[in-house]
Amino acid sequence: MESIDKFLTSLRAKLAENQVITSREECDFYGQDWSRILTPNARAVLFPQNTGEVALILKEASAHGVAIVPSGGRTGLSGGAVATKGEVVLSLERLDFKGPLHAGALTLRVGAGAITEAVHEYCKPHGLTWPVDFASKGSSQVGGNLATNAGGVRVIRYGNTRNWVLGITAVTMGGTIHEFNGELEKNNTGYDFRQLLVGSEGTLAVITEATLKLAPLPRSQLAFFFAVADMPHVLKLFAFARARIANLSAFEYLDQACFAQVLKHFAVASPFGAEGGGNAEAQAYVLLEVENATLDEASGWLGEIFDSNLVMNGVMAESDRDFKRFWQYREGVAESILAGHDVHQEDVSVPIARLGEFYSTAYAQAFPEFKVFFFGHIGDGNLHIFIQKPAAMSREDFVVGTKAADLELFKVLAQFKGSVSAEHGIGLLKRHALSFTRSAAELELMRGLKRVFDPKGLLNPGKVI
Amino acid sequence: MESIDKFLTSLRAKLAENQVITSREECDFYGQDWSRILTPNARAVLFPQNTGEVALILKEASAHGVAIVPSGGRTGLSGGAVATKGEVVLSLERLDFKGPLHAGALTLRVGAGAITEAVHEYCKPHGLTWPVDFASKGSSQVGGNLATNAGGVRVIRYGNTRNWVLGITAVTMGGTIHEFNGELEKNNTGYDFRQLLVGSEGTLAVITEATLKLAPLPRSQLAFFFAVADMPHVLKLFAFARARIANLSAFEYLDQACFAQVLKHFAVASPFGAEGGGNAEAQAYVLLEVENATLDEASGWLGEIFDSNLVMNGVMAESDRDFKRFWQYREGVAESILAGHDVHQEDVSVPIARLGEFYSTAYAQAFPEFKVFFFGHIGDGNLHIFIQKPAAMSREDFVVGTKAADLELFKVLAQFKGSVSAEHGIGLLKRHALSFTRSAAELELMRGLKRVFDPKGLLNPGKVI
Repeated sequence: MESIDKFLTSLRAKLAENQVITSREECDFYGQDWSRILTPNARAVLFPQNTGEVALILKEASAHGVAIVPSGGRTGLSGGAVATKGEVVLSLERLDFKGPLHAGALTLRVGAGAITEAVHEYCKPHGLTWPVDFASKGSSQVGGNLATNAGGVRVIRYGNTRNWVLGITAVTMGGTIHEFNGELEKNNTGYDFRQLLVGSEGTLAVITEATLKLAPLPRSQLAFFFAVADMPHVLKLFAFARARIANLSAFEYLDQACFAQVLKHFAVASPFGAEGGGNAEAQAYVLLEVENATLDEASGWLGEIFDSNLVMNGVMAESDRDFKRFWQYREGVAESILAGHDVHQEDVSVPIARLGEFYSTAYAQAFPEFKVFFFGHIGDGNLHIFIQKPAAMSREDFVVGTKAADLELFKVLAQFKGSVSAEHGIGLLKRHALSFTRSAAELELMRGLKRVFDPKGLLNPGKVI
Repeated sequence: MESIDKFLTSLRAKLAENQVITSREECDFYGQDWSRILTPNARAVLFPQNTGEVALILKEASAHGVAIVPSGGRTGLSGGAVATKGEVVLSLERLDFKGPLHAGALTLRVGAGAITEAVHEYCKPHGLTWPVDFASKGSSQVGGNLATNAGGVRVIRYGNTRNWVLGITAVTMGGTIHEFNGELEKNNTGYDFRQLLVGSEGTLAVITEATLKLAPLPRSQLAFFFAVADMPHVLKLFAFARARIANLSAFEYLDQACFAQVLKHFAVASPFGAEGGGNAEAQAYVLLEVENATLDEASGWLGEIFDSNLVMNGVMAESDRDFKRFWQYREGVAESILAGHDVHQEDVSVPIARLGEFYSTAYAQAFPEFKVFFFGHIGDGNLHIFIQKPAAMSREDFVVGTKAADLELFKVLAQFKGSVSAEHGIGLLKRHALSFTRSAAELELMRGLKRVFDPKGLLNPGKVI
């Protein structure tokens, strides 16, 4: 009997029948993420219901030398939760409790499997929120948000996920349960393993529970959608907004190609009138959102924006319906580009001070022969670049061509001291890119850390490092 | 010739004369921190002027097996920068450049030796600040702030130092220069060594430069000083403030003993009238500060505070002089207790939700025979507890007695899942306390990480772990 069979037999004796699943259908479903590029090949899927069961599983896995892939909502785009080599998937989805919430301490205890949006809903009646927000929040889980240090649309105001967690309960491969940082705002007692786990993509320990930090819900939100001449004007508008607008909560960009794609895919109207494609001459669009501002305050800086010709056109959301529509223009971009197409995706960042220069260089150099879409989180220096396969091009040529374009882009990024993965992580799909952002000495330190936490290399093997 | 002599001889050939100092006076000065408990014993002090010189020094130190103690403003209270065993002190004070500042990106590049308050002054003309703020800011240095993850008086609004750094340049013992995270807001490419270095107290690498993240200066600040009946009322006032007051930027507490000590030491008047000692019946005082609030908004919640008898008395700062005086009441506490006395210091934290219960337990159990002062950062669950040696007690009895009281306090803290060092770090002086907050498994992981970064154990040996 193979050791993986012994492992599963041993677990079947200790867990319920519906906690150890080996059907092909379930293995394929749970062995895959939203990147949909790699072929899933999981041997089994496990469904622990509490931290103790995770500890039991990891202890047995360690004893039997079985590789484990921790698994959340699998909305990742880098293959960080994909099982391709007969590993056992450890799904945290049944560990989805929410509460207690403490309004005075601004904390919420949750299981790793709690859905991000369900956490938002849970907090709302208390006038609070967990300010981690992005398009896939209806499926993503808190454990995955933490393991990947999720970014999203309001980082400019709230920062990344790592800012919004006080304590992490996690299990290392031998089955030891750790309570990293408890529920403490301040705790300077040596190395902060909580922060080390955030963004480690399940390669060091399995996050099972967390104490999240909450923020007050904004008292009000104003949203504006602007048509802008070009990227230099977008950056001028951003510099103005940064200097002049308090509580800026989003500054999101999409180019003309993205905007046209969204209008077409969702069959929605342009907010700028009947022509349908937005302002014919505008090359860029900006969604600007601000929290807790009065209309009076806003009319002050709006006047300045129009008077100084920073934008070509602009509208304010005057209803909840407008607000949702403006956000659909931005958050619907990825879906509208992906629909029915082969798409190669990039998620890069550079120092904000160098964004303009990077954009012109990358735009001119990296993808001469493709249809390219630029959008993203300008305020964080983070651009998403989606490359659609032209209808006339073969898939093979597309893969070869985008790989070559990748290399060119990564070289430009290295020059700009940028990141080859701003918010999507490394997983399996970005490993070839890692050395363009991290030095050889850093990779060596990473391998050293991995050995400290997982000396046998059984936890999410092949991911990140 | 001893290896340390060879090391110094080699450096003298490569650095200027005033960069390698061995005089007893300088060694004693640079070998000590503000804790003033341990006897300094440094063999030499080195003054590199740039990151390259730090790399040269660490490469030579590694080759010669010489122990190095990195050194900033040495305002620490846990002996984290003290040299007691003939180590060589590596002072970063000449690496004190400031700039460039980028207002659009909200970033400032600085050398590790830049004084915290000088950084504030540098940013001010741009309408920006580095929101790391505490009483010793006139002496402390940015490198030390990062290495100890400094807390302070505005954590409730801005968080700890780790939230305010984008990139860290650091050198490991072999002399390798690392640029951790560059100047990137978003960079999910594996383990975040920047965050790992923050709070590591110079045991993993020497921080030489950093790209700090800046915040807009508040448009306005209102400060209030309240006399409060007792700790339960302080906590009620805090719960009210958390729920009702937007942009709360400080909620600081001192007890009656602290307040009396401050008034006496600085010969300043109570803001509550002629009696001098404040309200005779008030056992507690609270400094509440709020940013960007109008007087109209404030009068709303002020009315509620008085109407519901949360406080016994209260005054608002009506001038810059008032504002400074209120802050002196709070920030002068430590100095006024320390002046001319032997003082044993604690810096503890618990989950905010359990602060009231912890306070009563610690107050009742831990220090029956001493004069004890409680003050601190209620909003962060962080209490400072200072214990003054009674005039009639011998120093020996005091040390024995406080050690025993320490143990009782640490046991209570462990019950409450609290921290034995909320913001002061572990250094040399808190090592005996570490296991009350961190598990044996965590300590083992810490030792593993230390070995990855510093396999020979030459960097700040004996500190933390």
